[in-house]
Amino acid sequence: MKPVAVLNGPNLNLLGLREPAIYGHDTLDDAEALTRGAAAEVGLEIEFHQSNHEGVLVDLIQAARTGASGIIINPAGFTTTSVAILDSLLASELPVIEVHVTNIHRREEFRQHSFVSKAAQAVIAGAGIQGYDLAVRRMATIALRDR
Amino acid sequence: MKPVAVLNGPNLNLLGLREPAIYGHDTLDDAEALTRGAAAEVGLEIEFHQSNHEGVLVDLIQAARTGASGIIINPAGFTTTSVAILDSLLASELPVIEVHVTNIHRREEFRQHSFVSKAAQAVIAGAGIQGYDLAVRRMATIALRDR
Amino acid sequence: MKPVAVLNGPNLNLLGLREPAIYGHDTLDDAEALTRGAAAEVGLEIEFHQSNHEGVLVDLIQAARTGASGIIINPAGFTTTSVAILDSLLASELPVIEVHVTNIHRREEFRQHSFVSKAAQAVIAGAGIQGYDLAVRRMATIALRDR
Amino acid sequence: MKPVAVLNGPNLNLLGLREPAIYGHDTLDDAEALTRGAAAEVGLEIEFHQSNHEGVLVDLIQAARTGASGIIINPAGFTTTSVAILDSLLASELPVIEVHVTNIHRREEFRQHSFVSKAAQAVIAGAGIQGYDLAVRRMATIALRDR
Amino acid sequence: MKPVAVLNGPNLNLLGLREPAIYGHDTLDDAEALTRGAAAEVGLEIEFHQSNHEGVLVDLIQAARTGASGIIINPAGFTTTSVAILDSLLASELPVIEVHVTNIHRREEFRQHSFVSKAAQAVIAGAGIQGYDLAVRRMATIALRDR
Amino acid sequence: MKPVAVLNGPNLNLLGLREPAIYGHDTLDDAEALTRGAAAEVGLEIEFHQSNHEGVLVDLIQAARTGASGIIINPAGFTTTSVAILDSLLASELPVIEVHVTNIHRREEFRQHSFVSKAAQAVIAGAGIQGYDLAVRRMATIALRDR
Amino acid sequence: MKPVAVLNGPNLNLLGLREPAIYGHDTLDDAEALTRGAAAEVGLEIEFHQSNHEGVLVDLIQAARTGASGIIINPAGFTTTSVAILDSLLASELPVIEVHVTNIHRREEFRQHSFVSKAAQAVIAGAGIQGYDLAVRRMATIALRDR
Amino acid sequence: MKPVAVLNGPNLNLLGLREPAIYGHDTLDDAEALTRGAAAEVGLEIEFHQSNHEGVLVDLIQAARTGASGIIINPAGFTTTSVAILDSLLASELPVIEVHVTNIHRREEFRQHSFVSKAAQAVIAGAGIQGYDLAVRRMATIALRDR
Amino acid sequence: MKPVAVLNGPNLNLLGLREPAIYGHDTLDDAEALTRGAAAEVGLEIEFHQSNHEGVLVDLIQAARTGASGIIINPAGFTTTSVAILDSLLASELPVIEVHVTNIHRREEFRQHSFVSKAAQAVIAGAGIQGYDLAVRRMATIALRDR
Amino acid sequence: MKPVAVLNGPNLNLLGLREPAIYGHDTLDDAEALTRGAAAEVGLEIEFHQSNHEGVLVDLIQAARTGASGIIINPAGFTTTSVAILDSLLASELPVIEVHVTNIHRREEFRQHSFVSKAAQAVIAGAGIQGYDLAVRRMATIALRDR
Amino acid sequence: MKPVAVLNGPNLNLLGLREPAIYGHDTLDDAEALTRGAAAEVGLEIEFHQSNHEGVLVDLIQAARTGASGIIINPAGFTTTSVAILDSLLASELPVIEVHVTNIHRREEFRQHSFVSKAAQAVIAGAGIQGYDLAVRRMATIALRDR
Amino acid sequence: MKPVAVLNGPNLNLLGLREPAIYGHDTLDDAEALTRGAAAEVGLEIEFHQSNHEGVLVDLIQAARTGASGIIINPAGFTTTSVAILDSLLASELPVIEVHVTNIHRREEFRQHSFVSKAAQAVIAGAGIQGYDLAVRRMATIALRDR
Repeated sequence: MKPVAVLNGPNLNLLGLREPAIYGHDTLDDAEALTRGAAAEVGLEIEFHQSNHEGVLVDLIQAARTGASGIIINPAGFTTTSVAILDSLLASELPVIEVHVTNIHRREEFRQHSFVSKAAQAVIAGAGIQGYDLAVRRMATIALRDR
Repeated sequence: MKPVAVLNGPNLNLLGLREPAIYGHDTLDDAEALTRGAAAEVGLEIEFHQSNHEGVLVDLIQAARTGASGIIINPAGFTTTSVAILDSLLASELPVIEVHVTNIHRREEFRQHSFVSKAAQAVIAGAGIQGYDLAVRRMATIALRDR
Repeated sequence: MKPVAVLNGPNLNLLGLREPAIYGHDTLDDAEALTRGAAAEVGLEIEFHQSNHEGVLVDLIQAARTGASGIIINPAGFTTTSVAILDSLLASELPVIEVHVTNIHRREEFRQHSFVSKAAQAVIAGAGIQGYDLAVRRMATIALRDR
Repeated sequence: MKPVAVLNGPNLNLLGLREPAIYGHDTLDDAEALTRGAAAEVGLEIEFHQSNHEGVLVDLIQAARTGASGIIINPAGFTTTSVAILDSLLASELPVIEVHVTNIHRREEFRQHSFVSKAAQAVIAGAGIQGYDLAVRRMATIALRDR
Repeated sequence: MKPVAVLNGPNLNLLGLREPAIYGHDTLDDAEALTRGAAAEVGLEIEFHQSNHEGVLVDLIQAARTGASGIIINPAGFTTTSVAILDSLLASELPVIEVHVTNIHRREEFRQHSFVSKAAQAVIAGAGIQGYDLAVRRMATIALRDR
Repeated sequence: MKPVAVLNGPNLNLLGLREPAIYGHDTLDDAEALTRGAAAEVGLEIEFHQSNHEGVLVDLIQAARTGASGIIINPAGFTTTSVAILDSLLASELPVIEVHVTNIHRREEFRQHSFVSKAAQAVIAGAGIQGYDLAVRRMATIALRDR
Repeated sequence: MKPVAVLNGPNLNLLGLREPAIYGHDTLDDAEALTRGAAAEVGLEIEFHQSNHEGVLVDLIQAARTGASGIIINPAGFTTTSVAILDSLLASELPVIEVHVTNIHRREEFRQHSFVSKAAQAVIAGAGIQGYDLAVRRMATIALRDR
Repeated sequence: MKPVAVLNGPNLNLLGLREPAIYGHDTLDDAEALTRGAAAEVGLEIEFHQSNHEGVLVDLIQAARTGASGIIINPAGFTTTSVAILDSLLASELPVIEVHVTNIHRREEFRQHSFVSKAAQAVIAGAGIQGYDLAVRRMATIALRDR
Repeated sequence: MKPVAVLNGPNLNLLGLREPAIYGHDTLDDAEALTRGAAAEVGLEIEFHQSNHEGVLVDLIQAARTGASGIIINPAGFTTTSVAILDSLLASELPVIEVHVTNIHRREEFRQHSFVSKAAQAVIAGAGIQGYDLAVRRMATIALRDR
Repeated sequence: MKPVAVLNGPNLNLLGLREPAIYGHDTLDDAEALTRGAAAEVGLEIEFHQSNHEGVLVDLIQAARTGASGIIINPAGFTTTSVAILDSLLASELPVIEVHVTNIHRREEFRQHSFVSKAAQAVIAGAGIQGYDLAVRRMATIALRDR
Repeated sequence: MKPVAVLNGPNLNLLGLREPAIYGHDTLDDAEALTRGAAAEVGLEIEFHQSNHEGVLVDLIQAARTGASGIIINPAGFTTTSVAILDSLLASELPVIEVHVTNIHRREEFRQHSFVSKAAQAVIAGAGIQGYDLAVRRMATIALRDR
Repeated sequence: MKPVAVLNGPNLNLLGLREPAIYGHDTLDDAEALTRGAAAEVGLEIEFHQSNHEGVLVDLIQAARTGASGIIINPAGFTTTSVAILDSLLASELPVIEVHVTNIHRREEFRQHSFVSKAAQAVIAGAGIQGYDLAVRRMATIALRDR
């Protein structure tokens, strides 16, 4: 089976370093380790990427379109602004799960709208980096169901 | 440790029976079984309730305030209309996880606002009844962390 | 054939007593008599209920789902606030006719939006309690057509 | 007693021909026959008109002001755009009943506002061409009451 | 010098007859007489028209474009809905004065927006039919100034 | 003279226990004692109720309609969501005073709208539980005036 | 008969000096002379004031309440911001005519709303300083009618 | 093959004469000539109409429904106000191309919404009268494709 | 202890004289007498001011900042328009109680927003001039509590 | 003469592959071929680019500023989000034609706003890839006119 | 050369005294000293005023119109409410620089709109009292450029 | 001490070249020279960057997080659209000053909102390239204060 692409948007490379009162102390490396652990447990392979460039994320999603079996994406700052990412997710015709480390629905109003949600089967917000673990578990169920 | 209250809002007693194209074929009994299975796996006890009455849900949340260690709630039709439930969740001072079977963010606009989110640490939407399983796993992590 | 459930929302028990300049002098008993008369004329059986409790109305609609052939509902104060009633009506998969004694489209703006309309085949507003009579006639036509 | 003017707005001459999935297969001739049948039954005389021209409808309403005892109007495409028709209805000082073949409250948002409702005693929407029959019955009651 | 076109929109033929509590008891004939009197006093010639048809008013404005020296218009029900009239007024390149018998700024909110104002040099509202008299006086001043 | 009904909405049974930084340390028992004290001072009798159920509150208001001389209501979480309570208050045709322990006008925007205010003669917000005392004093004045 | 108070708001003392492309070259002295001329013609006495201070204008309107027979007001920059002036005009219980030198309905959107209009019988906008002349003529008619 | 109906809305008879800074110097005759030239080139026949009357345009569209193979429409002032034209276009079940001489998306905000677009396969705005030429070319392609 | 400043905004000097159907027949002198009586009863000293000038009210609030122990303010027409008064109240760092003679929440929508509420501990609206009495009683409690 | 830059935004490289029910089966290579064919026919040279990166598109537009005679742009997902592209188009001072394969005015509301339109002379939407052909023809006319 | 008028709005006389967490500890005297120092350095003369009265500020701006070479204004609480001040600034035809001690764009939403900005060449917000120093430096550059 | 990062957004490389009526004739090189001159004067070191790529700016801000003592940013076209830049600025935990060459508050409405302002201590808009000079002076004060 093809791997699941796990994609991370802008500033997530600073996770654990920036504004820990909001984002916690876990780093993106911790998130990757957790994701890989969960994937191993449920029998999925993953690819893990981060970029601050919207265009790079679009390229990665386009690559996933033929090279992956599903997409887990934390769009971060692009959540609420990027139609390009939405369009590439729609074009991928893959199952998509949207993850946010914080509960965006309790934060500033401008963070509460998501273009990505229009392409996502599921949204997991506010579970910290465990959100990646939960997303992998859901992706495994989808993979089983769709097989 | 006190049990986790798992509360379900109006019409969820019809889950699996009503509009399966939207809500799927899993019933609330399936959801309860799944939740109990996950809880057993992570060492949590649960109580599982459903009501079509807003006041009954408020009463249950008030009871959880002293009798439970956390609340997992699928507020269904009360998601977007009940300040009373929001206030009771805030009053509970417990960790709260909000679950929706469907990805409400892709549905009619009036379903995309949630009063409950203002009191929830995490939101899991669109993962079907597996959302309960994922919520239990997150609750276990919170319980560990807060111990 | 199963009966038609005729459901009445909050404060309709005071019909004819409260604010007659707005709601007229006919009582809910008058409305029931009129409805029963029309039903007899067109060969339908009816059940007639009123409740001030949203949850009770949801329960009644859920009961109608298997026990009735159609729903005539005057949601009164729940018209514009209850997603739970909307969801139960959608779940019923029955023909639904919405009745309002007054023409809500001429009243305060907050009375002009209806969640119930999203589940109703027809809306009859401003015909006084004759609206129930008209709704029964329409329901009979639907029953004939769908037979 | 003066007749009731039954007025039909733009494109209703195509009823039954256009978009039958939305508007059904009954034609305006069917509607007229149904209306005349109901009128005969309740002892009212009717005049039945259709026009695609807003000005013609205003002229007809002005004529009804002195020549008719009530107005039943399906304003169709002018529902949501014509203050001129609203003003002529207000000027008529006649009882007005607004009819829509479809339930406009379930359709596109721009169809859900009605200037005509501000002048209408009653609104009947979504009952197909039977809406004309129901409107005639209500008009007969008003005529009796006001006599 | 060319005459001034005085144009009146829908239902103004009923002025003095309809809703006198709002529009007063003066008729359109009274308004015409008053206008002609004022015009004679200030040395202007006028043409006086009324139509319930938007297209007829557009035609009249287009005719005024070459045949009149200015336009006084009471657009009535078309005030707030007709871009076609606005466009014909802009195309006329004539001085335009907008008259309303009532003070539309104190009435229902939907009457308070005017497309016509975007083409009008002056607006006179709420002076009853004397508004026509005042508009003629202003038009005379403009005519003198522009000579 | 009939007693004054003092009605309390959802979660007020937790007053003094929940979120004391917002709601203070006084309990609903303290509020009742204060209210009874003030009532005794000004010569009024009171009945004191609390419910988390909207329908129960509607029932209580309907009972007050014939059994009480006035209504003091702290609608709490139903303030901003319940048209049913508004309608029952309007139907009661009694003097109504609305009380809020906190100044809702300084809190989250969704708490600043009140359906209840449309039926209330007076609103007292932000005076803590002393608001009940002040409401009783105002109700006494109204009772005197209306005698 | 008592005089008519003609009141002018902030910056109108600069009329003719400031932004002539918008406001023209006529000064407030010209406006006063024109107003006095028209008043003499129709047999009214006037008092003419200008102030940059909202409070002074409120004081003048309060004085007019007992000392004048009507108020002509060009509220200028207070048009859209002063509820205090609106309230004093309502309190005066005098006929009020609102004048604007320019057609405010063609200018920036923030200039198109007027609190003063809620208290004005008539509004004359865009007739330059002749607007004062027209307002005086209308006031004379009102004075005659009300005598 | 049936001809293509080319329909032009209000004031387009003044094209080239009115406001040339906005609309250019080409006349409607020029537009017709250009359209006929392009049609000849691609093998289509056309009928070319203009009206200032909404009702006439609705009639023409209804005629096209059975008598034409497609509709090219420049709705001009009716673009943003006419649901009747929209409904007749939807009823026609023909391919519709919407043309605007100017780029309406750069003009006043009230010109930027189009009811017609909801029924149009394509929109061409801002290409001057060449827009008609381009529309004809597109219509030819559609005709070929649908043959 | 320092006195409590009781400040009254524009047009309150006309209380009892203007629009008695809305504001009642009690005058500001009555209000002052009532306030002084209540203050004597609870052991507070008061200073009582009224001004039609926003700047004077700001000056008085700034004076209260060092010379008073609390502020009771009826901002009247400045309620909804004055950020300057809000800022001076915030700067005072005193307890502030906002009083309105009428229930502004039932009046025109533009009266329902209050800048002053953002600085007020309590709001009392619709209790007539008794509102001053109630405010004094609340202020006494605050004074006791803060001592 | 300098070539015309034809620029394509994000995900257009997947044209014909993604969501063919919406975007059709023609690929971007087909579009390029069609564009080159039309350009050859009308005597224009073109450069054809696609990028998923907003910054790259800004760079290309800046390059066109000195190296091209006009810009045809299909901004795709950047249509509604990129002020940077708008600014670079404005800076180019070149004729700009905006092309969309689908009629964006019939799609989701968030696709109906275009920043690019503020810099475009013409917009062609919904003509499929023929839109490029039509844009080239219009560009040729502009080039001729501006020569 | 004429001096630069430095004008300060309501409550700025309390700068450094009120809410230092927001506004800092620098007083208006400190601001004046800083401004005078900067002015001396760049060769400008200044006049420095503060008023809590909108009318006084309008008077000062009108005086500056002939007596000053530029205006630096911190409108404080009048920023978002005073059209009168905006109009006087526009009338002055002087260069205007708007200063705010705090970054109003990060504060409450009602503080983020500025009427004054419509007349200001530059806005400096959030630089504390150094904002005055920076404004003087910019004014000197403008003076040089315009000489 | 670490240098101050001076970052410039899209199209600023064309400053002085594009739309000089809006942006003036000074180039980005002029701005850099001015900035370096001011920095030398106040004893700061600067790094100066421009990019049309949002991702590159995010990378530069992330680099500044550890390598700079403050950030001066002119976000240009990203001002109103980039949450990613806002998040990187928040993550930097550095003092941020936002500069705009023009007064964006007087330009098109879509340019008047700034995400960057939520992270900026100060905003300087409309001072031309001198804005950079003023920002450097403010940054020096902050550096001194924070030392």
